[in-house]
Amino acid sequence: MTQRTLRITLEYDGTRYAGWQVQPGQRTVQAEVEAALATLLRHPVRVRVAGRTDAGVHALAQVCTVRTGEPLATDRVLRGLNGILPKDVAAVEVAEAPPAFDPRFGATGKHYRYRILARRARSAVDRARCWHVWDPLDPGRMEQALAPLVGTHDFSAFRAADCPNKDPVKELRVAALREAPGSMIEIDLVGSGFLKQMVRIVVGTVVEVGRGAREPGEIEAILSGKDRTRAGRTAPPQGLFLVQVMYGEDEAG
Amino acid sequence: MTQRTLRITLEYDGTRYAGWQVQPGQRTVQAEVEAALATLLRHPVRVRVAGRTDAGVHALAQVCTVRTGEPLATDRVLRGLNGILPKDVAAVEVAEAPPAFDPRFGATGKHYRYRILARRARSAVDRARCWHVWDPLDPGRMEQALAPLVGTHDFSAFRAADCPNKDPVKELRVAALREAPGSMIEIDLVGSGFLKQMVRIVVGTVVEVGRGAREPGEIEAILSGKDRTRAGRTAPPQGLFLVQVMYGEDEAG
Repeated sequence: MTQRTLRITLEYDGTRYAGWQVQPGQRTVQAEVEAALATLLRHPVRVRVAGRTDAGVHALAQVCTVRTGEPLATDRVLRGLNGILPKDVAAVEVAEAPPAFDPRFGATGKHYRYRILARRARSAVDRARCWHVWDPLDPGRMEQALAPLVGTHDFSAFRAADCPNKDPVKELRVAALREAPGSMIEIDLVGSGFLKQMVRIVVGTVVEVGRGAREPGEIEAILSGKDRTRAGRTAPPQGLFLVQVMYGEDEAG
Repeated sequence: MTQRTLRITLEYDGTRYAGWQVQPGQRTVQAEVEAALATLLRHPVRVRVAGRTDAGVHALAQVCTVRTGEPLATDRVLRGLNGILPKDVAAVEVAEAPPAFDPRFGATGKHYRYRILARRARSAVDRARCWHVWDPLDPGRMEQALAPLVGTHDFSAFRAADCPNKDPVKELRVAALREAPGSMIEIDLVGSGFLKQMVRIVVGTVVEVGRGAREPGEIEAILSGKDRTRAGRTAPPQGLFLVQVMYGEDEAG
């Protein structure tokens, strides 16, 4: 059978998962997706992914690929996956991709959103989809703190100690803050690539500025110092969403 | 001890509940709230509520009251409740209210929102907070269907068979449709009062217009016919949110 590459866009609620990547003895999104695909395509599969997400992190449009010889129409794959996958994982789109399409190395950018609930009372409806910050936050100060991060920088100060990425220099194209209904503050970061926990460390640091524990002007020194210990605490995972993975027109299939 | 009336604004995720109202052997929001208040105030309580919600329906700002002689500060009540209540119920605000304040009869209006996911793929992140409609929907037709409902009408065609409300004449002040990100269609209804399942029957009917099974022009005849069997099917509960209860300035406390 002729081999083909399917590009699968996934939405998931990361609450019950130990993250994307398969780990023995853990519930992971990758394991659920591979099991569903194996059932549907009737052969063992291994998927490739645009970017791993940590335990508790959500995705609106994660991208992965699978190679198969099974001639099932893309629409049948979409519906089949949504019939097999657990309720907290959904296939949003399935498309044919060129054989050379690589969801990770072909990505030209990623868009992450982080949601902060800024009020005294905790949330009931959004409890697994935001970080509840009890202290009053000043959104204007937070915007000031975000501004110097935009551009091409060595983001070593904002990455996890065990980050395996060989190149800490990334281009951050957008760092925008929006006050949304229900006392929600949304921070959107769009960039060429992200280091491990980079969004959550940026948000943790910016929230410290927002609550007055740090000054907006400290950010540039933290960035240029390239020292993780000078940045703020890592924000919790449940506020983070992978919103979109961008591809150049050639790679997109 | 001097008796006082506390007005409590509640947010809840209705997924795990058999609705607001206490029912023997069922998990209900009222039972959770009364149990938490009894613990905190150290006496048995019975709350009064602005409006019951059905099983699976959510609230961003339900309003209830409790009478107590306990002199605990409102901020302590807020924090205490949020420490005791289960994660899917939260106290958003606690305030002193005049003794005559009645959350149900004092209400001058209510705002409901209904969320429809209009795409082929189901949702993972919002699965318990929207109605997934697979068929293509025409938002323009849906807006046309909503328009004649605005105003003061006998809404008998849009109420549950067992609706106990003595007066089916209600004023619908707003019936607005909004296309939100993520293929979400949000319908906001604001009115003087709502009959049992009125929002869900309106939405179910409007969705039938949106998918082309009915014409927008049918709505006026359904309304004037006052016959429930001529309206559409009741939309499922998980898309519905009680967003706000309005009070005149005097009643608000």
